[in-house]
Amino acid sequence: MLNYINLDLIFHALADPARRVMVERLSQGPASVSELAKPLAMSLPAVVQHLQVLEASGLVRSEKVGRVRTCRIEPVVLSTAEQWISERRTSWEHHLDKLGDYLAEHPDE
Amino acid sequence: MLNYINLDLIFHALADPARRVMVERLSQGPASVSELAKPLAMSLPAVVQHLQVLEASGLVRSEKVGRVRTCRIEPVVLSTAEQWISERRTSWEHHLDKLGDYLAEHPDE
Repeated sequence: MLNYINLDLIFHALADPARRVMVERLSQGPASVSELAKPLAMSLPAVVQHLQVLEASGLVRSEKVGRVRTCRIEPVVLSTAEQWISERRTSWEHHLDKLGDYLAEHPDE
Repeated sequence: MLNYINLDLIFHALADPARRVMVERLSQGPASVSELAKPLAMSLPAVVQHLQVLEASGLVRSEKVGRVRTCRIEPVVLSTAEQWISERRTSWEHHLDKLGDYLAEHPDE
């Protein structure tokens, strides 16, 4: 369970193309670390480092059963980042609506 | 005009709390640099540095008229980041739906 959601860590995690490829893969379902590594032109330790950044942000969690570590996405954390951006966009659209109303009421300005 | 949209730079720009405060302010309408600085406990040069990161990402653009630099948000860039996350979330929901269908069809597994 997540105790807190940290937008700094979430957006930092998403700021790297390899980590976005991993999130993209996991959005299609859980995957092992080696499955995550497959499309990436990098060593397994490098992939594990990226995975650690994703886990630190809460976007991904993983569990080791036997010799296989299975990773899955944490949709609530993904939604939190989406919602932050969405609220800013809505706020901007609201600003434009108000501006439009003002200009309609004051056509000579 | 933007020539390209770079998700690395956009998410990096959003990964800092001061820069998110600036985006939040600008989502309510254009603002001068000193207006952006007002709620932030930092020097004006530090604010300008953050502004440069926001401008490099395309999230914010600014224009100097006389002595005042006015900043405004670039909603298309904000939407691009929102859309990337939203597509991953939708993809995950689609995966869950398929899983649900499979389990309904194979109740004994």
